[in-house]
Formats: sequence, structure tokens, C-alpha cells
Amino acid sequence: MYYEYAHGGNIYDENGHTNENIIDFSANINPLGIPDDVLTAARNSVAYSNIYPDSNCRFLTSKLAEFEDVDKSNILCSNGASDILFRLVYAVKPKKVLVAAPSFADYERAGNASGAEIIYYPSKKENNFNIEHDIINIILSASPDIVFICNPNNPTGNLTDIKMMKKIAAACGFADSILLADECFLDFVNESHKYSAKSLISEHKNIVILKAFTKIFAMPGLRLGYAICGDKNLIDRMRFCGPDWAVSNIAQEAGIAALKNGREYIKKSCDYVKEQREYMISELKRMDLIIYPSHANFIFFHCPQKIDLYGEVRKNDIIIRDCSNFKNLEPGCYRTAVLTEEKNKLLIDALNGVKILWQNRS
Amino acid sequence: MYYEYAHGGNIYDENGHTNENIIDFSANINPLGIPDDVLTAARNSVAYSNIYPDSNCRFLTSKLAEFEDVDKSNILCSNGASDILFRLVYAVKPKKVLVAAPSFADYERAGNASGAEIIYYPSKKENNFNIEHDIINIILSASPDIVFICNPNNPTGNLTDIKMMKKIAAACGFADSILLADECFLDFVNESHKYSAKSLISEHKNIVILKAFTKIFAMPGLRLGYAICGDKNLIDRMRFCGPDWAVSNIAQEAGIAALKNGREYIKKSCDYVKEQREYMISELKRMDLIIYPSHANFIFFHCPQKIDLYGEVRKNDIIIRDCSNFKNLEPGCYRTAVLTEEKNKLLIDALNGVKILWQNRS
Repeated sequence: MYYEYAHGGNIYDENGHTNENIIDFSANINPLGIPDDVLTAARNSVAYSNIYPDSNCRFLTSKLAEFEDVDKSNILCSNGASDILFRLVYAVKPKKVLVAAPSFADYERAGNASGAEIIYYPSKKENNFNIEHDIINIILSASPDIVFICNPNNPTGNLTDIKMMKKIAAACGFADSILLADECFLDFVNESHKYSAKSLISEHKNIVILKAFTKIFAMPGLRLGYAICGDKNLIDRMRFCGPDWAVSNIAQEAGIAALKNGREYIKKSCDYVKEQREYMISELKRMDLIIYPSHANFIFFHCPQKIDLYGEVRKNDIIIRDCSNFKNLEPGCYRTAVLTEEKNKLLIDALNGVKILWQNRS
Repeated sequence: MYYEYAHGGNIYDENGHTNENIIDFSANINPLGIPDDVLTAARNSVAYSNIYPDSNCRFLTSKLAEFEDVDKSNILCSNGASDILFRLVYAVKPKKVLVAAPSFADYERAGNASGAEIIYYPSKKENNFNIEHDIINIILSASPDIVFICNPNNPTGNLTDIKMMKKIAAACGFADSILLADECFLDFVNESHKYSAKSLISEHKNIVILKAFTKIFAMPGLRLGYAICGDKNLIDRMRFCGPDWAVSNIAQEAGIAALKNGREYIKKSCDYVKEQREYMISELKRMDLIIYPSHANFIFFHCPQKIDLYGEVRKNDIIIRDCSNFKNLEPGCYRTAVLTEEKNKLLIDALNGVKILWQNRS
């Protein structure tokens, strides 16, 4: 049951130990790391571990409301983004959910956990896995209770533009569906505001936007995500359908600190990732790997020969994401994070060291 | 909807700020506080916030297995104990659940969240709110899918002995029910091993024991709980029915550190709490308050006159738990934690200062 939903970022052995030499390209974390003042805030807040967190995350929520320019009643903070996915399905109790394939595995898992039937929108590799107009027909004919769209999509990196998102939201409105727009990687996209479904939430109350501090502020260990939604009743219902005190004191304080210079940090991170992504893509193309266009902090590619590329780079203590357990993907598909210049060069070197395995045979 | 489920320990105003002068007797946290080496471990682990936690908490789980003397496959770690309650209902999808009244509100809330019908076992104040044999008939006739027993019970402090727990587990077996035994406060009970349902789990696979680091190690801000269950399939199903990475790196490291000298710390805490509980009970009795026998780190009492005792002590920056929102309790019921000698004296002083309100009128 579990391999199907295995994620990147699992750098632990069976005893829970990690190898500090490993360079992990399988988790898509901001290469600039956690801002120093976030680490300081987290460390200082440890002293308050003997008191319960504010279960409503009131101060963090008010800061997020300013940052996202929405009302604080439209925000629900959570124990990482995936907490929201489960709260959503338990709040909605869907009979049927629609997920794009390939996409992040936890939409399907949350659907399964809630007992829903899973239906798929198979995106086409010849169209770079873009979500296209035919999804509208599926929504209108199948009437799923929830439609999950990851934007940019994990693992493929493609963007869905705001016009298409608006059409999907409208179709969801007709079909009485919730649209879950997962924008956890959108902060890595240049001019992200042009793509965010946030501009649609006042008109379309059926949109739930999923966001996280995890990737952009490089704090997966602290667990902090949130939902933005125009339907306050749905926010309340999601709050009700999971535990109180979901967000630790430390995660709340770290989040507040991250937002303080958040915009500057996001801009800097975005610029850095763009430069490194372009470098990596040009290098990967020179190795005759098939690269798909990515707008995110990771790159999706295909190796035309049957080679265990994961195993090959693993010999150099490097982990990339073997994407063969994603729905609708053939073997030979991989995802690599865009990390620091120094680390990226090590991955490129490692791949150059084994490219003879496919270049000579293609 | 929310007041019904309001908890103690909410010391935050509407902006999420706390008043540092407040002495909080409404949350039942170990008065000896977090052990120093737990704080140190938590602080040191902040440095690893940029990596994902081990979603299976493998190292912590192996240490817990040693500590609890059960197999590690029988343990599931969670984002605080309440995370387990929600995972359980979503794993079991109960049509009907049985909760004692009064008891911890989240059993009912989790049942409601999962769409179950709630049925009540009303314990009797004239029997000190003990769970008695008549619960067996209710289980056998109503066949609830889950039976929630808090031991010792929150807010009343009464214990259910192991013979009764065994009968309940057997009745649950007949009725195809899960027995959730919440032992979050059991570590504060002298000779707790005589009361724990742990001795029953190999024979009764339908028992889920709920435990937490929250109370006994005084770390509610870090969020760490766990379940012990003899049914590995149910453990797996609970894991599946909530998010991965539920437990932060910091909570995992803090938990590992807490277990290291855990037994000594629990013994010391237990002795301290017993001494202070006896002191407080004798003082409260002298004020003509009706005190119920407690085996836990809190005391449940009733004020015979209609006085807002919560409001009266609040004037001294002291918070006690007004229990009037618990099912099956009349107004005038309160719960106070047993804290440090110094703090307990302040509460006793505050109550002595207002006892004229009921002593003259009774």
C-alpha cells in the first residue's frame, strides 16, 4: 500500500538514521535554506514548549492575512500542507475526487482515506503535461466533489495559467465541486501573482488554495502550511475535522519570523532558482535527456534508455526522485530539485559520469 | 459549535497574545516542567529544520517500544494525542461511538467529525463518576464501533481498575468495537502499571491505548503523542488516514531525550504531584467545597453555591477550568491542575479570599 505513495525526501534508513554525506535532490526545498532570523525565532520559542500553542494561530494568521492580502477569516494554518488535504476530504466527505495524473500522490491518498472514488485526468506528455480544456468536460460530466490541481505541477513543473484556472473554477461551480489549487511551489515562479488563484477567491467561494512554508522557507522539519478560502464555513469545517493545537509553538513563531522579510526572501530565492534551473537544464539537454519545461524549483526529465539512473547517482551519495511510482508515467522519468550551484554541479558531474550508458545506445 | 468543545490551557487573547502574569491551572501540565535535557535536545534539533522529518518516526518508535515494552510495530507516533483520536475515527469510520459523560470533549468531537452518532454513558456523581458494570450492557446492546474510556478520567480524576477495563475490552470484542483507552494522565498515578490496559493488548487486539508526552513531560507546545495497539493493521490504517510527517523533527528529538531518564522523571513527578494534591485537597475541603477523589494531576470539585468561581480567581490572574461545558455536569463544577507548591498556595489563597461567598450561604 505504501510504496504507491512514497515521497521524496526520505533520507532515513530502517532505524531512522540519516547519512550526513547525502545530497538530497529528491525533496524540493529552497536552496538558500532557512532564513537566519527564522532559525533564531524557532530556537527562542523552544523555551515556551511548556505551554499549549494557540490552537487558532491567531497572531500568525493575522500576519499571514497581511502578507497574502486576504481577510484572516479566510486562512487556516495547519501541520504542514498535507494536513489541509486530509482536513479537506474529511470536511467535504467526497464520493468522488478528480486528480491529474501525474501529480502529487497525497491527493489520491487523502481521497482514498476518506473512501472516495478516484478519477484521473491523464495529462499528455506530448503537451508537456499541461492541464487542457478537456478537463472541463470531465468535471461537468463526472461531477467530482473535489478537483485537485497542483500549480506548478509536481513532479512535472508545468504551470496552469489563470484563464484556465478560472474556467476550472467555474466548471467546479456548475458541478458543485471544490477546487483545491495547490500552490506550494508557486512562490518559486517568477511573477507568481499572475498565476495564483488568489485573485479568484472572492468570486469563487469553492476554491481552496493550499500553501506551505515548507518549500519556500526551507523548513520541512517544522511543519507549517495553510489554506486560503473564500468560504468561511468550509474553513471552520476543516478546523473542526482535525485536532486542535495542530501547529506547534515553534512553527507559529518561525512562520511569523519568515513573513517579516518574506517578500525579499522569495524574490531572492526565485532569482537564484531561475539562474540555477537554466544552468541545469542546459547541461541536462547536452546529455540527450528529454527535459520538460519547468517553472518551479525542480526539473522533470526522461532518460530514453532503460537505466536505473536513481541507482547510478546514488553511488555518489546523491538522491534524485525516481518518478516511476507516479500514475501515468513510464519508467525512466525522474525529478531533480534545483539546489545550490555547488550541489547542482555535483549532480551534473555524476550524470556526465554515467551518460555513456544511454548516449551510446540511443 | 466551538464553545461546546472549548479546552483548558487557552491563555491567548483574540490577537493571539498571552499575559505572562497568568497562572494557568486550567491545563494539566507536570508542575516540574520540561526536563532540561529535553529542552536542550529540542533547541539543538532546530538546526535540522531544513530536512523533512522521518515520517515513520523510526528511531523514536524504537525507543518508545523499549520504554513501553511492546513491539515497535504496535506503536504509532502522532502530532499530539488528539491526532490519534482523529486518525482512529477516520480509520474505523464508525456509525456509532460511545463516550462517557463527563469526559474529554474531543472523543465526541472526533466522532462528530467522522459523522458518527454519539451515545453517552452517563457516570454518576454519587459514585464519584466511576465507570460501572452497567456500561457492559450498553456496549452489548448498542454495539458502538468505538468506546472511549479516559483513565484516569478527565475532568473527574477517577480511575477505572484493570478488571473493569478487561470486562469492557471483552464486551467490545463481542460487539466488534474498538476500545480507546486514553491513558494520557496515567503516568501521574502511583503504580500506574497496575491500571494500564497495556497488559491486555496481546489478548485484546481491539484496544488502542492513547498516550502523550504533553502532560507528563510538560511539552504541550511541541506536540507529541502516540498510540499502542496490538492490531498492526489498525496501526497501518491510522497511519494512512492522516498526513505523513505529522511529527516534527524537534518533537521527535525531544521525545527521544525525554525517554532517556523517563522512568526517574515520572517517579519524581508522581511523588511531587501526590504530595501537592493531598495538600490542595485538604485545603479545599476546609473551604466546604465538594471534592471528588482524584488519582491524577488535577482535582475536580463542586462549589455548592451559584458563584462564578472562575471569574473570582481570574481577578488574581489565576485561571481554573470551568467545567460547565462538559456533558452531564451541573454548573459550579471546576477542575484545577496540581502545580508547584508556590503556585498552589496562590490558588488556595485566592479561594480563601472569596470563600465567604459560599461558606456564609450554605
